[in-house]
Amino acid sequence: MKPEILFAAGEARWRRYEPLLRRALAEAGLAEARIGTDTGPPETVDYIIYTPDSQVRDFTPYTRLKAVLSLWAGVESVVGNPTLKVPLCRMVDSGLREGMVEWVTGQVLRHHLDIDRTLASQNGEWRPRAAPLARGRPVTMLGLGELGRACAQALAALNFPVTGWSRTARQVDAITCLHGATGLEQALARAAILVLLLPHTPQTENLLNAERLRLLPRGAVIVNPGRGSLIDDAALLDALDSGHVGHATLDVFRTEPLPPAHPFWAHPHVTVSPHVAAETRPETAAQVVVENIRRHETGLPFLYLADRARGY
Amino acid sequence: MKPEILFAAGEARWRRYEPLLRRALAEAGLAEARIGTDTGPPETVDYIIYTPDSQVRDFTPYTRLKAVLSLWAGVESVVGNPTLKVPLCRMVDSGLREGMVEWVTGQVLRHHLDIDRTLASQNGEWRPRAAPLARGRPVTMLGLGELGRACAQALAALNFPVTGWSRTARQVDAITCLHGATGLEQALARAAILVLLLPHTPQTENLLNAERLRLLPRGAVIVNPGRGSLIDDAALLDALDSGHVGHATLDVFRTEPLPPAHPFWAHPHVTVSPHVAAETRPETAAQVVVENIRRHETGLPFLYLADRARGY
Repeated sequence: MKPEILFAAGEARWRRYEPLLRRALAEAGLAEARIGTDTGPPETVDYIIYTPDSQVRDFTPYTRLKAVLSLWAGVESVVGNPTLKVPLCRMVDSGLREGMVEWVTGQVLRHHLDIDRTLASQNGEWRPRAAPLARGRPVTMLGLGELGRACAQALAALNFPVTGWSRTARQVDAITCLHGATGLEQALARAAILVLLLPHTPQTENLLNAERLRLLPRGAVIVNPGRGSLIDDAALLDALDSGHVGHATLDVFRTEPLPPAHPFWAHPHVTVSPHVAAETRPETAAQVVVENIRRHETGLPFLYLADRARGY
Repeated sequence: MKPEILFAAGEARWRRYEPLLRRALAEAGLAEARIGTDTGPPETVDYIIYTPDSQVRDFTPYTRLKAVLSLWAGVESVVGNPTLKVPLCRMVDSGLREGMVEWVTGQVLRHHLDIDRTLASQNGEWRPRAAPLARGRPVTMLGLGELGRACAQALAALNFPVTGWSRTARQVDAITCLHGATGLEQALARAAILVLLLPHTPQTENLLNAERLRLLPRGAVIVNPGRGSLIDDAALLDALDSGHVGHATLDVFRTEPLPPAHPFWAHPHVTVSPHVAAETRPETAAQVVVENIRRHETGLPFLYLADRARGY
């Protein structure tokens, strides 16, 4: 087996990934695979390792292509590409999941404990105000995919009463699961802290608009490590200005880097986090990609196939 | 059974505790107990509900006393009182434990994720720097009592490699346990984040002195929700000034409220938290106290007896 693998995710990443991919290929019995950023004519390429910021936009010349393997979890910018006729696999990386659980748990506890107030009160005035217990602080998680489930369960283990919402019905241990349009209204109405971990699809675009923001309890906190497009920015700013939403901690934005003039930067009740909630970890991601190549080469189905109808 | 119970924990607390205690007594079949802040002559009192800031310092007149029941977990200021000849029970309260787990987990994640940096970087400059995974951030917990064990296990569940240390050998699931003098040196040497949850005893006074602070890896972070007396304040300030210790988040102090002139307040690498990490929750604490009275009245042994030899 000598598959040809095009690494179409940029030269900078290639320098980081090359040794990891070569080692993973050798361990998978694929040491003879050809892999690089320029493997020759498109019609000889079997697999493309891909990131949505890749220069490859037209898959038509890749006539022998068996699959496109994304290094990113979010594939919304490629899943609808009409020239892509072969399977597209998302990245499902244990390192990315662990990082996301740590970031979401840390931000939820920051708001729960009001750590910002402690940090802003280093002025010699002793003003104790203990937080209520987590069991009295309802958290709602929008999105119950791989990442949403893991975060919801970590929060439930800390005693937060967690409600999870997904488009279609799901069951997750220790979480109250709601779904559909009515479920969304109920999930928002009880959220002292709201976490967004939905994919970007036409259905989730501006999901959190002015009308739905009004359903939140007054003073609710929003934590968004999902996708910038889930929120109507202008509606959120209005809700923050009126005090209806207490704070928003945002890790993702419609335009990244977030432009310096964007009002989120200067808003006293917005925390801008520069898209660091979770990143793919090359060590584990290289193994995930190679495992999918090995599976296909030995007749097994691909893991983590994107669903084009759903858009993720 | 008509036990007489003196509530010797102040008038302000009495207003909060009275309805909770009366309800708990009724539920325990002790509705006829007499309880109040002034029950009559000392020689008729069966139980004293106590806080270490109580005005009762001399237990000699309480000749019929069966036990002193503390509303606080820390009893160091009363356990050595020579006039106290009857059993002393500490507070072990599920609400206090939950609050402590939430505070410790939140502060460890704050330092792990460098949330302070995010909050100080709301200036329009997009400078992503993702944290390493928790599995690469060793945490050491000094103290493996009720609270230390619960916090250590919550951190281990988030993938932090946790080393626990106690004076005598212990076994705790998912934690590397060390003990004794040599174990303490090993536990300090590996601590990227050090959490102190030891009681105050003659043996733990100034446990973290200049010599032991030097054993920490450079840049280590200290989180102290235990007792102020565990740390030599001057040695800590020296270690912070030299950069050997990266940050100290302190919830407890030798003098509380911490005096406005204390250098901790103004130090850029100290976070002063006004003793809010965990508080006894009256709802659950009232039940714990009444359960101990019920047990003794029905011939069962007391729970949570303080050990006078150990001092806690």
